[in-house]
Amino acid sequence: MPSDKDLDPADVAVRKGGYELKGRIWIDGANGTFLGYGRVVLLERIAEFGSISKAAKSMGMSYRHAWELVDSMNRQAGRPLVETSIGGKRGGGTKLTDSGREAVEGFWDIYKKFKCFLTKEGTSLQF
Amino acid sequence: MPSDKDLDPADVAVRKGGYELKGRIWIDGANGTFLGYGRVVLLERIAEFGSISKAAKSMGMSYRHAWELVDSMNRQAGRPLVETSIGGKRGGGTKLTDSGREAVEGFWDIYKKFKCFLTKEGTSLQF
Repeated sequence: MPSDKDLDPADVAVRKGGYELKGRIWIDGANGTFLGYGRVVLLERIAEFGSISKAAKSMGMSYRHAWELVDSMNRQAGRPLVETSIGGKRGGGTKLTDSGREAVEGFWDIYKKFKCFLTKEGTSLQF
Repeated sequence: MPSDKDLDPADVAVRKGGYELKGRIWIDGANGTFLGYGRVVLLERIAEFGSISKAAKSMGMSYRHAWELVDSMNRQAGRPLVETSIGGKRGGGTKLTDSGREAVEGFWDIYKKFKCFLTKEGTSLQF
């Protein structure tokens, strides 16, 4: 994961002179927020650590909150984004499905275009 | 003022299938928020009513809050956006300056482009 994603706040800002064009984007599903900056970083951390608990800890988030976010995403997606296997030869674990990886990529793709939009529009601010 | 501006919430949404790409933009100045959807509608109402009090009332906002928003915008802009004259032949009043009108136009210009961005990017959402 590129370090700028790691450090960027959910609010994307562009400074020009004394003014900044800022903004936020997210995707709503049937029951409110489906994907947003924090949720996508959580998915990436789950892929990295293979564990909701470790992913949550790395973000200073409670396990309960992380679990609820994953549940919210899984319920609203056509197919689950995160799957947990119990036991087995390798002791089970939590990982992203193909849909989960596609959701992460799709969100960053839009997010990147949004940053370009803010950069472009933020250069002409004068008041 | 076009009716869609009047009715639109600050969150701009695009629905496609079961998902909506939503977003918000605003402009920060030296002391936090300088211009945003609500502030720009307030400026338009001040231009319409010639009065901060009447503009505030039309938005269900307290006079004190509206005054603070105007003060925040005037302090952060290079030149005041709103000016109040006291007395005189026509009894004074509050109106937008040229800078104020330009700020309103400039914000709606970016906002319109942002809506186009969300429409364009919101059509390909599939999860």
